[in-house]
Amino acid sequence: MTDLNRRHLLAGAAAVGAAAVTGLRPTAANAAVPQTGAQAPGFYRYKVGSFECTSINDGARSFPMPDKFVVNIPKEEALAAADAAYMPKGMVTVPFNPQLINTGSKLVLIDTGNGVANLEPSKGAVGRTLQNLQAAGVDPKSIDIVLLSHLHPDHTNGIRLADGALAFPNAEIMVPVKDWEFWASEENAGKASSDMMKNYFANVKKTFAGIESKVTKYEWGKEVAPGITSIATPGHTPGHTSFAVASGDKKILIQSDVTNIPELFLRNPDWHVAFDTDGALAQQTRHKFYDMAAAEKATVIGFHFTFPSVGHVEKDGAKYRLIPSAWNPTI
Amino acid sequence: MTDLNRRHLLAGAAAVGAAAVTGLRPTAANAAVPQTGAQAPGFYRYKVGSFECTSINDGARSFPMPDKFVVNIPKEEALAAADAAYMPKGMVTVPFNPQLINTGSKLVLIDTGNGVANLEPSKGAVGRTLQNLQAAGVDPKSIDIVLLSHLHPDHTNGIRLADGALAFPNAEIMVPVKDWEFWASEENAGKASSDMMKNYFANVKKTFAGIESKVTKYEWGKEVAPGITSIATPGHTPGHTSFAVASGDKKILIQSDVTNIPELFLRNPDWHVAFDTDGALAQQTRHKFYDMAAAEKATVIGFHFTFPSVGHVEKDGAKYRLIPSAWNPTI
Repeated sequence: MTDLNRRHLLAGAAAVGAAAVTGLRPTAANAAVPQTGAQAPGFYRYKVGSFECTSINDGARSFPMPDKFVVNIPKEEALAAADAAYMPKGMVTVPFNPQLINTGSKLVLIDTGNGVANLEPSKGAVGRTLQNLQAAGVDPKSIDIVLLSHLHPDHTNGIRLADGALAFPNAEIMVPVKDWEFWASEENAGKASSDMMKNYFANVKKTFAGIESKVTKYEWGKEVAPGITSIATPGHTPGHTSFAVASGDKKILIQSDVTNIPELFLRNPDWHVAFDTDGALAQQTRHKFYDMAAAEKATVIGFHFTFPSVGHVEKDGAKYRLIPSAWNPTI
Repeated sequence: MTDLNRRHLLAGAAAVGAAAVTGLRPTAANAAVPQTGAQAPGFYRYKVGSFECTSINDGARSFPMPDKFVVNIPKEEALAAADAAYMPKGMVTVPFNPQLINTGSKLVLIDTGNGVANLEPSKGAVGRTLQNLQAAGVDPKSIDIVLLSHLHPDHTNGIRLADGALAFPNAEIMVPVKDWEFWASEENAGKASSDMMKNYFANVKKTFAGIESKVTKYEWGKEVAPGITSIATPGHTPGHTSFAVASGDKKILIQSDVTNIPELFLRNPDWHVAFDTDGALAQQTRHKFYDMAAAEKATVIGFHFTFPSVGHVEKDGAKYRLIPSAWNPTI
């Protein structure tokens, strides 16, 4: 009775074309409907107590895996992990997801993506935050606070439009004081040895030039915006920060870059991504953060998790696993 | 240096309120931005060769797990599996996802969801297919073919509007001949012993009353629409059908209900869902289908996978696991 074999699966490919189609009895005289060529808007809403939160997709970038993308293991192992996650052959895919928190009194954007200046050069792969905010009905002028987790370009560069103007003109910009002290230091910039680090220092200088008066430096362990508490998670950068967002008896953890892509670095928490300033400290932070998140069964939001970037982290022996949350059609 | 402890995580919840907020220096005079209360549109596009496909979310229903939701295991085991997937305590969540295939010449909707008549009673949880088609820019009148995988209400009832009119007035409606013969039989209906089966028979009668002339019965192993081949996957119902969608050298498998929710029945392929007409045959089909899909590394679309419902199936000993595909911001 079951008739499940390769012949049937291949029949479709072998016999495409109206002449080969059997059993059709068209009743409509429609012209063919044009294809759209466009993805759905990349935003997703979830509640935390009385807060309405929105995961905003800035896009995802696929690129050939650099030799030292994971600095402390052979490249073959990293490629195998990417392949196991069905990434394009020989490549790695990194998504980017800022979070918008409407506390009822403040509209807070946590991280800003790669910036609209990247939209066209990347063919729309990244730099989509503004268009996805627009799709979500959010006027950039209405954002009160831009809260940056750390000062890497994929988190900060969305604060500028392509012409250099401010994308969120009414927002206070909050940066972790330890990251500011590190990246704004001319002395540290002078000591940078790799191209990557030189670029990071130059990017901070360029991005924040002339807007120092809009920038507030924040400490760890403080309520930096209503219901949003900064959590020290250093290693990825000296001032790298995660956030607890709490309202009523509900709470989530916005991990920022405690891992880069979970398929590699949450599964393998002792792997060090090339972008870390202190891989060993990042590894220590990672275990501490995930042990806590797993014990609390906390909802964890990851900047580099695949959109909508919401899930739970579980211990799996010496490793961890991410259980992505089911899409909720209502909120 | 790391300062990651519960005090910081709890500070947010304990100290919400403007008076407690430190470090804020508001620069904007915006009134608070109203919350939207609405989820993003539930559609997602992917390409198969030259075909543009769209996963359309009809919603997701959460309900207290019935005693015999899984008929051949103790309820506690089923509840534990739901709990492990972070479903609401004591409940099970079932999503529904029709697929729209634009072949370039035909617009084909595979399954139709629970129907708009369910939208308001369910408070928007299900019956969202028409609104998500609209969000995707698709006029229901432009759909050429409604291709039904089987004749259960969550797949068929979207063909009617709340007033009984046809939701896709220009579409031919294609049904698997074996399901039609089974469910349209007065003799079979008379033999139905459970309320569930009685309801299924009555629903088929009501849904298709007066539109028999629009219905085409299709066989297995045929190209039922351009590039879309019917695959025999019986057990869930006598005529339950999956589809291979092929264009150029690309192919995907639309599994329909080879499993109900993967968290229970793909992880545990020998569990029988209450809705099966022949659980043992469904189990046999499931192994056959997933062994093939895993061997081919095929992209598998599941009606009851969480939206966007696209992934890969892998063997995991005697079980299987689903690897959801990463959200692609471009197509």
